[in-house]
Order: sequence, then structure tokens, then C-alpha cells
Amino acid sequence: MARHVAGPEIERLIQFLGKLPGLGPRSARRAALHLIKKKETLLGPLTRAMAGAYDTVGVCTVCGNVDTIEPCTLCRDTSRDGSVLVVVEDVGDLWALERAAALDARYHVLGGVLSPLDGIGPSDLAIASLLERCRAGTVREVVLAVNATVEGQTTAHYITDQLAHLAEAEGVAITVTRLAHGVPVGGELDYLDDGTLAQAMRARTRI
Amino acid sequence: MARHVAGPEIERLIQFLGKLPGLGPRSARRAALHLIKKKETLLGPLTRAMAGAYDTVGVCTVCGNVDTIEPCTLCRDTSRDGSVLVVVEDVGDLWALERAAALDARYHVLGGVLSPLDGIGPSDLAIASLLERCRAGTVREVVLAVNATVEGQTTAHYITDQLAHLAEAEGVAITVTRLAHGVPVGGELDYLDDGTLAQAMRARTRI
Repeated sequence: MARHVAGPEIERLIQFLGKLPGLGPRSARRAALHLIKKKETLLGPLTRAMAGAYDTVGVCTVCGNVDTIEPCTLCRDTSRDGSVLVVVEDVGDLWALERAAALDARYHVLGGVLSPLDGIGPSDLAIASLLERCRAGTVREVVLAVNATVEGQTTAHYITDQLAHLAEAEGVAITVTRLAHGVPVGGELDYLDDGTLAQAMRARTRI
Repeated sequence: MARHVAGPEIERLIQFLGKLPGLGPRSARRAALHLIKKKETLLGPLTRAMAGAYDTVGVCTVCGNVDTIEPCTLCRDTSRDGSVLVVVEDVGDLWALERAAALDARYHVLGGVLSPLDGIGPSDLAIASLLERCRAGTVREVVLAVNATVEGQTTAHYITDQLAHLAEAEGVAITVTRLAHGVPVGGELDYLDDGTLAQAMRARTRI
């Protein structure tokens, strides 16, 4: 800011709000002002919610989900099919699949993707713990629900190789699957990229 | 959310983050996840900044700015020209003018605009306190820096009338001005509305 408009408490609030994804410097100021105006109905409750999250939230040591209990709600849920393990890059992907109620299975969060350029190798991801869970014997299928990016696909290939090795060396037979490619529901063909269209055509189904 | 993915602390965090301007349900989830991942570097500091703001920030009884001291930093600043009063709708507008270092004057925040449809009349805005400040004798000019909307202009007209009445009844002579209309700096003529272009042409200046 060109000049000091308000006290350091407000400046600090704007500064930290600006670090949230989706909020730039301008919208951080708007958000700060909104919070200050709604002191009792928003600033107070949000502060308490954040303090609550700070005190209670942790990463599940089994699957990598974030939750307030350990193991997490999903790992404790006995109604889920423990023979299917859905592997995701990030907790956000897990949440997205859960919102879609895509499958009543268990999850494994990798915590990223292989990216040699960024110095991220297999030991930086939760791949060893994934193989450990597969070795335990309950898992029959691993769904590689990684993003359809180059890094995501590289990671999927690496995990497929590791699981094949596990099958050879230790006789752990696991089916590896991936999400289907195709036209998004509600999507318009005209706006889709060629790769998706070609995949959707190749995988066409009888109606 | 279709299913309960995580503990109530996280759901509550997402719910309140979604009430910030600029964050919808999807970006609120992303923001919550970002906060949880950056627990020590962002969630903690932001929580403390918000608690600090909650404890210290208030509305200045003189001008309506928000600040941690009373009267506010701007009202205390003796280097400012006390003979010019810049009237704005909202604290956000005050901040914008200060960032632009538009004028070293004093401010008066109305807290909104006249809007009969929404039931907002003169008594709902800080108009009486504005006239009181003008009556005190130091003010020579009132700049009506309200938005160029119908409500903003209606409010400007109302205040101009009130100040004219003050001049007649009590001999308080105050010049009332408004911000110039014209082409925004860096703006392209092709994208401007007709009203702005017409105003800019009418108010053309010699170079």
C-alpha cells in the first residue's frame, strides 16, 4: 500500500488472507474489510473455526487424509470395501471423489506426483506405505485416480510397475485400474481437446 | 457435501471460509485444505492475525474508517488538510483513494448509499454527522467521491441539497465537488461505454 491507512493488525490480516488460494491482494483487502464489518457474525466464528482446526486436525497415518481423528473417519468406516484402494495425488482429489460418492472404497493419498524436474522422487511420495498396505493381503484392486497430466501418468506407470514387481516377487496379485477417459457429463464436444475426443470415441459403449 | 469426509471442525472451517467475498464453496474447500496443509506457516499466523483484529479493530467515531485506534490514524494525522472532506460510500473506497494517494485530506464514510427500494434513507447513513462536521467551521470543500451509480449520484444530490440548505440557513459556505469523469488511465476507448466517452469528450483539456 502506498500509505499506511490502518493499524498493523489490519495490514497483517490482509497480508495473510492474500496467501489463500483464490485471493489476490485486492480480494484479500475486500475479504479483510468484510470480516471487520461482520465482526460478530463472521470474524469471530471463523477465527474460532480456524483455532479449532489448528488444535484438532492432523494427517491420517494410514491413508494420508486430513481429519480430526486418527485413523480418519474413512479408515474407521467398516462399511467400506477394504479390497479396493483408490490412490489419489492429493486430499483435495479424495474429497472430490467422496463428494461424487464415486466408490465406497478405501483411499491412499500419495501427497504429490513424481516430478524429476522438481526433485520429487518415489521416496517423497507415500508409495512405500501403499505397497505395504497392498502386501497386507486385503487389497484386491488398486484404482489409480491420478490426474490426467504427464506427471500423473508417469506416477501411475511407476506404481503399476511396482505392483507388478510385488506380484512377481511375493505373489501378491492385485488388479490395477485407472479412471475412464471420455466426455465430461454436460460437456460440449466442440470445446473438448482432441485427445479426450479420440479416447472417448475409442472407448465408445453400446446404448 | 454428499458424504461426511472429515470431522466437523473442517466442515465448519469450509462453511465460514465460503462466506468471504470471492470464495465460493469450491474455493472455500481449496482454501481450507491449503490452510490445513500450511498449518504452521499460514493457519496459525492467520488465526492470530484475525484474533488480533477481532480484539483491536473498531469504527472511528469521527470519520467511520476502521482502525485499531480511536480516533483513527487518518483523523489523528495533523499533516492532512482539514479544510477538505472527502465523502465516500464505504471504507473500501477510502482505502482505494488512500492507496492512490489521491488527496491529503480528511474523510467521511457514509456507510452506504440512499436506496429507497432497500429501505435505506438518510437516517441510515452518516449524513447528520457529516453536516455536523461541516457546521464546525473548518471544512471549506466537500468532495463527493461516491460511485458513479444511480444510487451514488442520488446520494450526492441529496448531500449537495443539504449543504446548500446549511449555507442558506446558517451561513456555512462550502464548495461541493465531485470526482472527474473520463477515460480510465490505461483504458481503451473501444471498450468504454458511451456515457463515459461523451463525458470525457465534453471535459476535454488542452495539452
